[in-house]
This record gives sequence, structure tokens and C-alpha cells, in this order.
Amino acid sequence: MVHFAEQRSAPYSMIDRKHAVFTQVNNVVGTLNVLFGIREFLPDCHLIKLGTMGEYGTPNIDIEEGYIIVEHNGRKDVLPFPKQPGSFYHLSKVHDSHNMMFACKIWGLRATDLNQGVVYGTMTDETALDEALINRFDYDDVFGTVLNRFCVQTAIGQPLTVYGKGGQTRGFLDIRDTVRCIEIACHNPAARGECRVYNQFTEQFSVLDLAHLVESSARKLGLAVEIDHIPDPRVEAEQHYYNAKHSKLIDLGLQPHHLSDSLLESLTNIAMKYRDRVDASLMLPQVNWREPKNDRRMQMSMPSRSSAPEQRADLAASAGAKAKKG
Amino acid sequence: MVHFAEQRSAPYSMIDRKHAVFTQVNNVVGTLNVLFGIREFLPDCHLIKLGTMGEYGTPNIDIEEGYIIVEHNGRKDVLPFPKQPGSFYHLSKVHDSHNMMFACKIWGLRATDLNQGVVYGTMTDETALDEALINRFDYDDVFGTVLNRFCVQTAIGQPLTVYGKGGQTRGFLDIRDTVRCIEIACHNPAARGECRVYNQFTEQFSVLDLAHLVESSARKLGLAVEIDHIPDPRVEAEQHYYNAKHSKLIDLGLQPHHLSDSLLESLTNIAMKYRDRVDASLMLPQVNWREPKNDRRMQMSMPSRSSAPEQRADLAASAGAKAKKG
Repeated sequence: MVHFAEQRSAPYSMIDRKHAVFTQVNNVVGTLNVLFGIREFLPDCHLIKLGTMGEYGTPNIDIEEGYIIVEHNGRKDVLPFPKQPGSFYHLSKVHDSHNMMFACKIWGLRATDLNQGVVYGTMTDETALDEALINRFDYDDVFGTVLNRFCVQTAIGQPLTVYGKGGQTRGFLDIRDTVRCIEIACHNPAARGECRVYNQFTEQFSVLDLAHLVESSARKLGLAVEIDHIPDPRVEAEQHYYNAKHSKLIDLGLQPHHLSDSLLESLTNIAMKYRDRVDASLMLPQVNWREPKNDRRMQMSMPSRSSAPEQRADLAASAGAKAKKG
Repeated sequence: MVHFAEQRSAPYSMIDRKHAVFTQVNNVVGTLNVLFGIREFLPDCHLIKLGTMGEYGTPNIDIEEGYIIVEHNGRKDVLPFPKQPGSFYHLSKVHDSHNMMFACKIWGLRATDLNQGVVYGTMTDETALDEALINRFDYDDVFGTVLNRFCVQTAIGQPLTVYGKGGQTRGFLDIRDTVRCIEIACHNPAARGECRVYNQFTEQFSVLDLAHLVESSARKLGLAVEIDHIPDPRVEAEQHYYNAKHSKLIDLGLQPHHLSDSLLESLTNIAMKYRDRVDASLMLPQVNWREPKNDRRMQMSMPSRSSAPEQRADLAASAGAKAKKG
């Protein structure tokens, strides 16, 4: 069983109390239901569950894959890696991980927790076969991921919005590797009672690294790009040590698609192709981690170059509906 | 604010899916609501929250108070102590702890997490003033704690039921120290942004240690006691290393009431005084950690020596109502 059915946005979970509670109840209870369902009806089933690299936070030591050998006062044990998640969403994944480890232990279930990094890209070989199979391309402040947003900002001539210094470093992976990792986990099931953790990413970048990569790729396409540093709406270290292990999926055969100029060009070209559909007002962060309540009014400070007002209103409404549904 | 308002029983959380989900939603959402409430209405308020020593599980290293210095590959950090809780209830407390640490970090809240051991005793100086102030004395398999149950079993002439080998070692404390620890935490508030963790217990015992202590204390009262080893309904190590630090509350002035013959005699005497009210059928464990669904039928295999059938029916009904309410 592949379980990806969770509220997936950190900013969404930080909007206010209601969104935080919804995120944790939806994700934690959903996973509890899955665990009880497997135990009761199909105890030999291998559960593959989407976690996140964000469960670890940014400790000042190397991040291992799920577990760490701790030596302390002359004794030693293998323990779950300490978690320091950075949003109520990331916390929900930490809660899931603890619940899963326990269920594997008491019931002998098989599970793989895929601690995924930040995904970029929109296409796999399969979705590229026909435009009807086109994938969603989230770029807004709540559901978008950073590299996708930068490419869309490039396409509509908006400065890239780097949060704070931009030294925030994370693990990233191509959407094609995401799909391949799930396949690899399926073909190599965990043992009975084993709760296996894989760190699912292929490269580390800081946010500012990515901004510069997009900038130089855009230049080749003849596009000028500005980089804006805006106040970080999140509470996170803007400069920090980061070295996360990610060899287990490679050992099982993952051949990473590294972030290349051609991928960046292709992403920017997709954004260019559909730029009339972009709502430029959805780019700036509207959720501040420091506030217990955030009003997500539509921002109109940086209008798109091209979209007509009625199109923008449609998209804003659909983004609102999406946020409520998420 | 002192927040003790949680579902507090491990066996209750292990009855079935419904009870597991209720426990986690009740505890996690309750604490989220408290955190948002403090942030919005009284951000300087000091939150004192009841955690449990059971959050740590039984690692093969010394247990520190909430955080541990980890050295790894030549680097070092202070990290949350890795958690290996042993029930869906204990997991709910781990989830709370992660949520609290995060709220303190992003909002600058003040919090103290009291990781409490197993409480024994029923009276404080205040409740002893008048019989009308008498405290509850839970001894049943779901809400009772082990030492209280052993004293009640002694009073009604039932063998003490030790789960498995009885080598399960935990931190324990006298109910009078519980109350004092809360007072100490109140008088010494955490700093803004600090999520402080105290291990709140005074002595370590194994379950078999306790059975022998009750046995020898009972002998002095002229009572014969048998010790039965029954299959452990929980999934836990029956022999293990256990050394948990608990100096922070002592440093702040806690003067422990250690478990003494006189306390054991007083507990057994209270159980003797009210033994006509004991329902002997509630002693044996009815919740098996290995099963995803447990039917909690009333057990009548070991009837009390003294209670009349109609009294027993009342108590069974009220225990049932209690379980539903918990």
C-alpha cells in the first residue's frame, strides 16, 4: 500500500489554529486508520508512507536515515533520529513516524517511511506522452515549492523571492526520481516488524543556490532575472550546517536525475508556455509563522504582465478552493 | 496554566482503533488548543504540562531530562532525547512534546513538560483532613497503577499479578511529590521561548521489586501474599537497562517521600478498610497490545471474598462508564 493521502503544505498548516488542527488530525488519524486496517485485514502488506526530510529540521550533526547510533556515558544504542520539525505539517509527519514505528514493533507490520526532500519538475516520461496527462504545477505561496516558484517568477518577469538570507539548505529531487523511489520501495519490501526509513532526495541546495541556478539558466534563454531577499515568514535558521545521508535508495538502484541546465530550461519553458494562466498575486508569502492567525487576503502588489483581471479572479478563487480542500 | 486534561491510560488507548484515535485526537488537539490560546491571549503565561516518563521507552543508554548532547561524526548538538513510547497513549504525549517545543520556539512561549513516572499513594496532607476529600483509588486493569493494584490484591487475598518476568523497570513517585513538583514548577517559571523538561519521579523499581516489597510489608500486617507471573499483555522488554536522570526538581527543592514500609502499610490499610467495595473481577488485564481489537468483557474468574453480587454489578457498571468517559 502506498499512502500519500495527507495534507502536504507547511504554510497551510501555519495559517491558524483551525488549519493546524485539521492538518494534524487529518494526517495522524488517516495514518492510524491505515495501520489498524493493515493489521486487521492484511497484516503481511508492505506499507510505503510519504514522510519528509523536514522531520529532521537542521541539526548541527549529520542527518542519518531514520535511526542513529548514540553513545552516551559509556553505553550505546540505535535510536530513532531526534526530530526538530519546523511547522505543524512537518510535526504531523513526525507523529506519523512514531505511530508507524510502534505499529511495526507491536504488530510485526512491514513499513517504509520515505522522508522525501523538496520535489521539483512537473513531468515524468509517462505524463509527457500527451498534454491531457499534464501534471499540476503549484507555484503559489502555500502549495508551491521553491524551484517551481522561481521558474514561474522568471517566466512572468517577477523578481525571485528568496526568504531571508537564503542559506536555508534542504534536500531536493526531480519528480521522476520521486516516482522511481516508490517503485524501488515496492520491489524491496521491508521485513515483518521492520520500520525502514529512507531519505529520499538526490542533491542538497540552499535557496540562494537555486536562485542563482535559475538566474544563470534564464540568462541563456535571454531572460533577465532579479533576486529579492524578503523577510523570512518562517522561523528557521537562515545559515546552518546541513549534511543528510541518502544512500539507501541509491544502493537499491536509484539513478538520480541531477538538477541540470536542461531541466531548468525545460521547467522555465513550461512556465513561459502557460504564463498567461499565472496569477502573479499568489507569489508573496501570506502566512507568517510568528502569528497565530493569518488572513490570506489576495495580494495584488505585483500584477502579472499578461493575465486579464477576470482570469486572475478565476484563478484566485480556484486557489482559495484548493486551499480549503487541501 | 497547569494542563493535566488528557486521556491518561495506556491500556485504554490500546483497546481498539476507536480508543487509539480518541486518545491521540483528544490529547494532541487539546494541547494544540492550549498552545494557540496562550499565544493569542496570554503569551507570557507559563504552561505546565503533564508528560510521562513512558515517552522515552527503555533505551540502552541513560535517559536524560528531555534533551541529550549527541556527538556524531566529529560534530555535536543538543537534541531532543529520542522517544520510543510503548502505547498509543504514550505516543500522544510524545506528539504533544514535539508540538510544545515547536510552539515555544516560534512564539517564544514558556513551558515546562513534566515527564512523570508511575504515581502511587492516594492521600496528600490536604485530602487527609476529612474523609469527604478522599481521592480516587484506581486499581483496575485499565486505570489502575501497579502498586495500588498490588495493595488492593493483598487486601482481598488475591495473588499479585506480575506481567511476565516483572523485570520492567520504571520511575515511581509518591502522590504527595506529584503535587509538590507542580508547585515547584509554578514557582520557577521557564524563560520566554524555553521548553523545559523535568523527569518527575523519585525512585526506580522493577515490577517484581514492588511485588516483593508489598509481600514483605503485608507479612508484617499478618497477611499472606502470593505472586503470580501472568503473560505480559503489553509489548515491552521484560528485562532491560534503565537509568533515568531526575535531578532538576531535586535541585529546585523537591524533598522526596521515598517508598517506605509505613507508606505501603498505610496503602494496604486503606485498601483493607474499603475492601468490600473492591470488584475483584477488574484486576486481570483485558487489553492485549498484540490485538487490534479487544473485547473488554467483565471477568468473574477471581471473585472477591466479600462483595455482594449487586455491589459488584454497580462497580462494574461504573468502571465501564469511567472507561467510556476517560
